[in-house]
Formats: sequence, C-alpha cells, structure tokens
Amino acid sequence: MTHVFDEATAVEPIAGGFRAHTHPAYNNMVGPFGGITAGTVVAALQAHPEAQGHPLSLTLNFAAPIKDGAWDLAVTVLRTNRTNQHFVFVLSQGDGPVASGTAVFGTRRDTWGATETPFPQVQAPEDYPEQSMPDFVEWAKNYETRFVEGSLVMDGPQDDSTTTMWLRDKPARPLDYPALASIADSFYPRIFRRRGTYAPAGTISLTTYFHASPAELEQQGAEHLLATARAARFGHGHFDQYGQVWGRNGTLLATTHQIVYYKDPQA
Amino acid sequence: MTHVFDEATAVEPIAGGFRAHTHPAYNNMVGPFGGITAGTVVAALQAHPEAQGHPLSLTLNFAAPIKDGAWDLAVTVLRTNRTNQHFVFVLSQGDGPVASGTAVFGTRRDTWGATETPFPQVQAPEDYPEQSMPDFVEWAKNYETRFVEGSLVMDGPQDDSTTTMWLRDKPARPLDYPALASIADSFYPRIFRRRGTYAPAGTISLTTYFHASPAELEQQGAEHLLATARAARFGHGHFDQYGQVWGRNGTLLATTHQIVYYKDPQA
Repeated sequence: MTHVFDEATAVEPIAGGFRAHTHPAYNNMVGPFGGITAGTVVAALQAHPEAQGHPLSLTLNFAAPIKDGAWDLAVTVLRTNRTNQHFVFVLSQGDGPVASGTAVFGTRRDTWGATETPFPQVQAPEDYPEQSMPDFVEWAKNYETRFVEGSLVMDGPQDDSTTTMWLRDKPARPLDYPALASIADSFYPRIFRRRGTYAPAGTISLTTYFHASPAELEQQGAEHLLATARAARFGHGHFDQYGQVWGRNGTLLATTHQIVYYKDPQA
Repeated sequence: MTHVFDEATAVEPIAGGFRAHTHPAYNNMVGPFGGITAGTVVAALQAHPEAQGHPLSLTLNFAAPIKDGAWDLAVTVLRTNRTNQHFVFVLSQGDGPVASGTAVFGTRRDTWGATETPFPQVQAPEDYPEQSMPDFVEWAKNYETRFVEGSLVMDGPQDDSTTTMWLRDKPARPLDYPALASIADSFYPRIFRRRGTYAPAGTISLTTYFHASPAELEQQGAEHLLATARAARFGHGHFDQYGQVWGRNGTLLATTHQIVYYKDPQA
C-alpha cells in the first residue's frame, strides 16, 4: 500500500522537468501545505536523470497560491562539480509561475564533526500526549504531533514564539530527504502564538539545509523527530523563523530558516 | 569621492540583466569575498527597471570560483504581486554559470511588531579595540572590526564557534541594503575557530532576510553594526552558520543562514 506522502510527492518526467499534482490530504487553508511542495521538489530532483549526490540545501520561494491540480517543475541543472551540483527550478501552473527556487546536492565525506547546538531538554515522545491541529488543517492529519511546548492551544498572546514538538509521519514512514524537507516546514505560523489567535500568514521564502547523511536517515528510520522553531523579529508585515529538526537519537538532521508574510489580527 | 563599496558593486545594464566587475579591494583567498557578490546582486536588482519595493530575502548559491574581471547577471522577474516581487538570477562568466539565486522584494507596512531574540549583552563599540584580519584577507580591510568574542586570533581549538563583533564599512558609509547583504556574510568560516587553524572552506549557499525598513536603515546611518553568528553542526564536510545583524540602537536588521563546505585541516 502506498503511503499518502508518496502519493502526494509522486512526479512524472515531462520535457524539461516533472509534473506533480496537489493532493487533498495535504491541503492548507489556501493551497497546499508548503512542506509537501518542498518535499515534492526534493523527490523530483532526486529522480532527475543527471542527479548526483544527495540534497544539501533547498530554497523555495512561494510567489502565488498553488491551485488544486497539476503543476509543472522546470529544472535547470546549472552546474555539476566534483562534489556538488546546482539546480535552479520554477514551478508553474497554466497561467504562469507560482514558485521558484534553487537546490544544491552534495557528496558527503567522513570528516571531523561536532554538533554545537545542544539537543533540547525534553522527555521521550511517549511522555507527551498526541495533539491534533484544528480539524480544518488537513495536512496536519498526516503527522503524529506531540507538543513539548508552544502548542496551538489558544491561551492568549505569548512573549515567546517557540514551538518544540515530537512528530513523525502518520502512519509512520521511514525518513528520507523529501519527508525531512516537508517536516522542516511543519510549524504553524509563529504569529499565531505571539498574538494568541489565527492571522492571515504565508511563507514567502524557505531554506532548509540537510545535515543528515543517508546513513543517518536510515538510523532514524520511522522514529519520532524533535522539531523546534522560533522567530527572531516580527515587523512591517513579515517575520522570520529559524528551526532545527533532530533525530530521536540526538542527531541534528536539518536546520531551516524562513520568512513569512502576516497581517496583524488585531489591526 | 566614490566609496570603495560603491565602486565594487557598480553595475551597468546589458541585455537581460547587468554587467558587474570584481574589485581587487574585495578579494578573498580564492575569488571575491562572497559578501561583495551578494551586495552587487542586491544593488543590481534595486537598479532593475521593473523593481518594486525593497529587498526582503536573498539566496545566493556559489557554484564555481568567480575569476577576476567581468561577470554577467541574467535576471528574470518571475512574478510581481501587489506586495512582493520574485526574482530568479544566474551569474555567469565566459565559460559558464558561476552562481545562481533568488530574491524577493517586498512592500513594508506598519504592523504590530516585536523583536523576540534579545540584543546580545555587549559594551559600546568604542570599548573594544579594532582588530585587523590577517593581511592577506584583502576584503576585510574594508571593514572596521571590533571583536566582542570569537576573533580570528588562533589560540587553539574552541568548543564554541560563536563570533560576535561590532563592525562597519571602512571608511564609514551610510547603511543600505547592498551593504547589509555584504555584512551578513562578513564572518570568517566557523571551522577556523572550532579547529583553531585555517582550513579550506567556502560558502555553498547563503540566505539573508532583510528585516530593516528603509527608515531603519536611515536611522542606523554610518554607525557600527553588531553581528553575531555560530554554527549548529559540522559534519560530512559541511557546516551551517546562523547569524544576526543588529543596528547600534538595538534594531534587528537582518538574519542570515548559510551552508559551507570545509576540509578538515587535521585530516
């Protein structure tokens, strides 16, 4: 049986790139969940006949709402070096471009290494109850989410936008780069927490760096991931979000940074 | 008299984009300092006849060394919305593409705002001595740098890669978006500090979010900026760096994230 994530990120080769389709299971309030679009782009690039190495960085800029149905990914392999490969891509639907971005794939070598950021102080995933997002957030139903701090329970404005959560695909699914790209965008908008209420908000640009080697993804398997994120500044209708995604065993698998448009709910 | 930063980031329109030139004052060990390339791209996009609003995000991927001399910037205005505008661009020299990236310009509105990350606990810039980078790092001579912590003085391996510094253009120059883009890349590679020695290292991809409004840039003027950065993880030949650039008055002007290739100096 095909996992719903694999259904949603399936692509077929077309001239100059790939065709993908939105999937109703990953709908967001307007258009698809950004994470599933990111995951689909990563899946497509991995399927590119010239691809070398594994995903190292992904930047995705959302230029217009993606409508339900097919979208096309035009891929340019800009340059292939000995240890890395550069992609530029544009997502389009019938009436024009809806998103664009770049990616770098890289070859990983054994080197000296160190994780400098400490693993957050948390208990095991089983020690936190599973909490659902509101029923109208379709995409969140595909994640088993256990909040450590910063859930979407609306108890008024907060001084700190941090959300830390254990989560994994639901049903559980072995982690790969497309799934990691999606999970790196699985935080609800930080403005909700600061203002204690929903507000119009949408990611403008997101960048994820994949620290995980293929062997580290395999070690993680279908276990829970620990994801944490917060904003640095809200102002002039935009806020940033910096986040980390950790494996259950304490391996830092990805770091991610995004900038988000918002309207003030109290304005 | 033209400031050396303006000389280095000068562009002329050509069919499909702009022509720029490397400037010997901003040379790095191999090719130009990445920050000056980022600043030149921002200057070019601001000069684009269709540009609307001001820089909000910039992603720049370095695909090959940029050789001394001219380089061309091919710019595609992917989509112009009411409140933001999306660019895709490729940098090339005679024999092919050397870099690529995306940028988003946006219109800033007055909204509720908050800076969540605290301003680092530091003294005034004048309380720290000016410290030069080694003489062979040409580009660094264009910055007045006063380290609060994490200077390039080599006193052996360190457990923490953090560098916090006051800096500004030298000679002082009123801050604008190109200069902010450049300063966001003005940290020496974090691997140097962790390993206590130089190592081959180069940025693969960098992303900067510009939080500063034009009015905030004007308030900053030619004062010192406080820049701080650290890595989260080093491994498999790559490390990330997350940084913040603050105005002297405590305004968070930019956040930045980059992924860097390195070779282990002890391997």
